[in-house]
Amino acid sequence: MHTIYADNAATTKISQRALEAMLPCFTDVYGNPSSLHTPGQKAAEALWQAREDVAACIGAEAREITFTSGGSEADNQAIISAARQGEKKGKKHIVSTAFEHHAVLHTLNRLKKEGFEITLLDVHENGLITPGQVADAIRPDTCLVSVMFANNEIGTVQPVKEIGAVCREAKVPFHCDAVQAVGHLPIDVKELNVDFLCASAHKFHGPKGVGFLYAKKGTILTNLIEGGAQERGKRAGTENLPAIAGMAAALKDAVAHMDENAEKISAVRDRLIEGISAVPHCVLNGDREQRLPGNVNFCFEGIEGESLLLLLDDKGVYASSGSACTSGSLDPSHVLLAIGRPHEIAHGSLRLSLSEENTLADADYIIEAVEETVSLLRGMSPVWRDLTEGKKPFVTEE
Amino acid sequence: MHTIYADNAATTKISQRALEAMLPCFTDVYGNPSSLHTPGQKAAEALWQAREDVAACIGAEAREITFTSGGSEADNQAIISAARQGEKKGKKHIVSTAFEHHAVLHTLNRLKKEGFEITLLDVHENGLITPGQVADAIRPDTCLVSVMFANNEIGTVQPVKEIGAVCREAKVPFHCDAVQAVGHLPIDVKELNVDFLCASAHKFHGPKGVGFLYAKKGTILTNLIEGGAQERGKRAGTENLPAIAGMAAALKDAVAHMDENAEKISAVRDRLIEGISAVPHCVLNGDREQRLPGNVNFCFEGIEGESLLLLLDDKGVYASSGSACTSGSLDPSHVLLAIGRPHEIAHGSLRLSLSEENTLADADYIIEAVEETVSLLRGMSPVWRDLTEGKKPFVTEE
Repeated sequence: MHTIYADNAATTKISQRALEAMLPCFTDVYGNPSSLHTPGQKAAEALWQAREDVAACIGAEAREITFTSGGSEADNQAIISAARQGEKKGKKHIVSTAFEHHAVLHTLNRLKKEGFEITLLDVHENGLITPGQVADAIRPDTCLVSVMFANNEIGTVQPVKEIGAVCREAKVPFHCDAVQAVGHLPIDVKELNVDFLCASAHKFHGPKGVGFLYAKKGTILTNLIEGGAQERGKRAGTENLPAIAGMAAALKDAVAHMDENAEKISAVRDRLIEGISAVPHCVLNGDREQRLPGNVNFCFEGIEGESLLLLLDDKGVYASSGSACTSGSLDPSHVLLAIGRPHEIAHGSLRLSLSEENTLADADYIIEAVEETVSLLRGMSPVWRDLTEGKKPFVTEE
Repeated sequence: MHTIYADNAATTKISQRALEAMLPCFTDVYGNPSSLHTPGQKAAEALWQAREDVAACIGAEAREITFTSGGSEADNQAIISAARQGEKKGKKHIVSTAFEHHAVLHTLNRLKKEGFEITLLDVHENGLITPGQVADAIRPDTCLVSVMFANNEIGTVQPVKEIGAVCREAKVPFHCDAVQAVGHLPIDVKELNVDFLCASAHKFHGPKGVGFLYAKKGTILTNLIEGGAQERGKRAGTENLPAIAGMAAALKDAVAHMDENAEKISAVRDRLIEGISAVPHCVLNGDREQRLPGNVNFCFEGIEGESLLLLLDDKGVYASSGSACTSGSLDPSHVLLAIGRPHEIAHGSLRLSLSEENTLADADYIIEAVEETVSLLRGMSPVWRDLTEGKKPFVTEE
């Protein structure tokens, strides 16, 4: 069967180059980078090289990079660190948005239980927030602004640089969950004026189980994991050199080919958006322009997203309804609710997230598969028949 | 140059079998295990199989296993979880020992700052504690006993089963940091009556960056990392399937060959202990019998451990003075201080930690290298000349 993997926002396939960077760290450079002997020091050198490579890809210095087990850990650590510094100064207010990843929202919830006050900015129907909203929400007791770079479900890219400028002006630390952006969009931490920026390797063809936290020099980090003195004492646990080396190789590769990849991927995205838009009673989620090169996200009225996914799977199209992290949940996506989609519409979502391996022919195949499947499901749905027999559908055809 | 890697307590070389279990998870089963589509479900099946395999190796059920990024994370989560449940009941006292790994001690320190009271049991000169000490230390407000299975520096194996029985009797949860024991000693969590048990894959020829936390069913875990609903909502972050599959393969292998490996490794250990004991003014650290098959640890009077390591490194012998996690520190080992070694002796330590790849010929080579190096260093040391000119050395020759 012809199969198309279009769930790269959930995870990507590791690149050959990243895997090749990992293999010698398993078999040759296998020492503990904290050990003083020759194999340990060889590992320490490789670790430092990876740190320099990763830092260079985002305009940072090596010492500003802390390696973590992934994006979630990095996000947690950034937010907890800012909160701990904030409360020392009596500042217990945090500004974020309603459609952050749960790694951010759940951490904020934990802080709320500790007495922090959290302002979650409303997201516009196009999936964007404005720097003005951030400026208006900042108070004298604000200790952190946390806004994601690109949304993991609807792919909208926030005005990060402008938000960074607002934060600098207000002297409030700025955390940016850039898990969906790193390796896909140009990032210079100094230009963006971020204090914390988080990434996950497996979102850019690196290995799973590794990510990094950029923390601007001078920033005080709070450990999530206590123990050994690794990562300047800020993240205990033997350094995962194979994965770190794989991440560095994948990121270098992604940055080196960013423009050509973006051009290729966005052409497939645009074909998909155009083609799927022709399906009746559907709506594109997220701004048409300010979005990741590889993100397509639609809601289909009268459709249950999970059924759509399973039938597409039968046709060899591997997609998702939203975040893989919450796929076990029956609740509609908090992201789609945040941009104003009603529950019944939010349930009928489809996310296609592309990589440079996807082709225009893939797009055409997917468009046909979506058309057929949506039509089939609607034909089987009494709700849909009711809706279309006289009642006005939510999504109006353009 | 002939080289001998004898630092397996710091990290082991990944086994071919573990690596072979990982590779298909990079290239074929690369889906996100939380995704509903076919590649995701294949990954979910492999994840479940790994969970069952790991559980079976320690007499647990699959649902009692939480995969983590390593032993430190697992230790942190176990202790924090028990503390959070304890404080709900007004129980804020924890019993542990003075020679735990820093992943335990530093976490306990954090809790101390929060108002927990920590009793650290004295360790006998032989590197053991007794179940009676634990029984005596438990109070009505004790919410956790945390005792390591085998010490990472001196290799002593605690009477875990008897300590477990004391805890069961007192109805106090028992956490066992088994990072050095899993894969090396037989472990049945039910027999041992542990509530929490932690392991790290790279200590038994699995990959770095992955470990597990056994938590007895019914135990309530507190997240260290908030976010997605992975690991039953108790550990956020895309599951690191390649590493988890590698860990499961390594652990199965270690358990299947445990007896033969232990026999082979302990023969090398015994040869080393016998040979090195002949060096004047040295002392074996840790009980001669109750110790890991692969652990050798000596203190040499009048020797600076780091110099010893570097000269052994020149001879191709890769060893350590103690924990790799603290190798950057100038402080003497807290483990050696805990068993009563004076500072000046504790500084002159050498840990040789073996794997099944080490041979008796390796032992002979190491013994000769140690003899020569100790002699050379002492010849260069004015302190040593002072000590041996009339003053009584701390370590008396047997």
